[in-house]
Amino acid sequence: MIPPKDLIDFIRDFDNFLITTHISPDADGLGSANALSMLLKVLGKKTTLLIKDTLPKQYLFLPEISNFKSLKDHNKSENLILVDCNNISRTGLDDIIKPTDFHKIAVIDHHEISNSFGDIPWIASESPATGMMIYYLIKNLGVKLTPAMAINLYAAVAFDTGNFRYENTTPDVFRVVADLAEAGARPHAIYSSLFEKWSINRLKLLLSVLSTIELEDGFAMAVVTKDMLKQAASNEDDSESFVSFPRILDGIKVSLLIIEIDNNYFRVSLRAKGTIDVSMIAKEFGGGGHKNAAGFRIRADLQTLKTRLKNRLKASLKV
Amino acid sequence: MIPPKDLIDFIRDFDNFLITTHISPDADGLGSANALSMLLKVLGKKTTLLIKDTLPKQYLFLPEISNFKSLKDHNKSENLILVDCNNISRTGLDDIIKPTDFHKIAVIDHHEISNSFGDIPWIASESPATGMMIYYLIKNLGVKLTPAMAINLYAAVAFDTGNFRYENTTPDVFRVVADLAEAGARPHAIYSSLFEKWSINRLKLLLSVLSTIELEDGFAMAVVTKDMLKQAASNEDDSESFVSFPRILDGIKVSLLIIEIDNNYFRVSLRAKGTIDVSMIAKEFGGGGHKNAAGFRIRADLQTLKTRLKNRLKASLKV
Repeated sequence: MIPPKDLIDFIRDFDNFLITTHISPDADGLGSANALSMLLKVLGKKTTLLIKDTLPKQYLFLPEISNFKSLKDHNKSENLILVDCNNISRTGLDDIIKPTDFHKIAVIDHHEISNSFGDIPWIASESPATGMMIYYLIKNLGVKLTPAMAINLYAAVAFDTGNFRYENTTPDVFRVVADLAEAGARPHAIYSSLFEKWSINRLKLLLSVLSTIELEDGFAMAVVTKDMLKQAASNEDDSESFVSFPRILDGIKVSLLIIEIDNNYFRVSLRAKGTIDVSMIAKEFGGGGHKNAAGFRIRADLQTLKTRLKNRLKASLKV
Repeated sequence: MIPPKDLIDFIRDFDNFLITTHISPDADGLGSANALSMLLKVLGKKTTLLIKDTLPKQYLFLPEISNFKSLKDHNKSENLILVDCNNISRTGLDDIIKPTDFHKIAVIDHHEISNSFGDIPWIASESPATGMMIYYLIKNLGVKLTPAMAINLYAAVAFDTGNFRYENTTPDVFRVVADLAEAGARPHAIYSSLFEKWSINRLKLLLSVLSTIELEDGFAMAVVTKDMLKQAASNEDDSESFVSFPRILDGIKVSLLIIEIDNNYFRVSLRAKGTIDVSMIAKEFGGGGHKNAAGFRIRADLQTLKTRLKNRLKASLKV
């Protein structure tokens, strides 16, 4: 992967950068933005790392993560770099940053885009993680990987490939993480920090959610109600990644999780294996996403919603 | 990793090889032995792949796996290669193969040994998987990796590193699997074949087992009784890997699974993260294993066994 020349020039030519990522940031957003900031500092630049809200506590293990600030203001002479997202509304910072505040705006992202944004957009939708793009940027600029960069980028790539389980795990992913592990990222320790920090209440919630599984031919559907969260002394965040769990079942092509947000108001997550495109289904229900991971919010009663989803899935899986 | 010269000479000098692996074979044993046989055939040799009993059905996805035979007899002029085990008793084939049947015996294994066996032992206990050793043997002999070799070896390495989760996941592991993926192994497809083929009954058994978890400071203990197997229409094999599940809980250093084999007769599996050596504990109870994975069988009543284990673990974790 080769970073575009205008991005390289932009980094070389300017001195002040505000870097941010999407709202509800994950390891790819935070790790990539953090490693990019480290790279720019090695090159003698000034950087500010900005996020909406506070850092999710599961990512506090990332080296130098405390450099992220929740500012109410920023220096208007700066340049902006959006990392792992491709427009300002995804950052949740619309009230603080306006496109007109900046000299130039660059975008580094691996998500599909509908409308190009920014002066220097680098959108590599074929890249398994934004972390891979930052890795190649570091290599291209001839900067030596520090252990702190390596850990942040390894976490980014491990997170977005499901620890090398998903279909986006290419030979190149392994070449990059081999280099990151060589530079100081410890695979087991990072895996453990990312994926083995469950509370017992979260485990209780999983057991409760898995007991709701309904299996149909080729898909599985599970539910998280507010009552279940209460019973397990958990919150909605605890159900993160639960939608992927039924993938372990033989023959499951699509897994759905219905999360009760409010009375007769639900968030539905869909995950697919293989050729099914769940973003198409999510779009029909007013949502969106990727081919393998999509979702939507809907007002409905649970039984009607389940029936609609089952009928829609049966139609998809029949083809 | 460099294969010993006497092993290279042995492979070059002889024409007939019987290859086998341990009883209850796993992806590392089967994938490594299978890829070794492919390598030898490319070099113009004759090979026979032998295992005790029938192939576990979860490994039937491995290319050319049907070459394994459950023979009652073999050609006594052959040479023997033990793969992923280091003595004949571990193959379960004591009644069919005797050391004196063979011209020469080689051993290729990454398990620790107490007594050396065979004329040409290659024991690399630092290797994360025997599949890594076969990979380096193929490279050393200058043979091009075929897709079939690559898939067998990728499955071997992915299995023994817990899909790159365990502490044995080194930079070298990633370099090797990058090459295997480049040569035709598809990471997601192999992950899915190895780890996503659960029956719904197996999932029911997991829910039942996880509901028995007792959490202590630093360790988790769960139980599988014969009644639970019956309730979930499952068998003991379905509980494979359940011992590792509680590792997802924050702060768990040791996870134990107590499996009822018969009335007052149990098999106990132990898994550790970090510095605890569970093989020491297993030895005290008459068993053995690795630092991170060990086990034993014991006649006791369940309550007494649990109490003994809890006291023993508390003593270990206090240090």
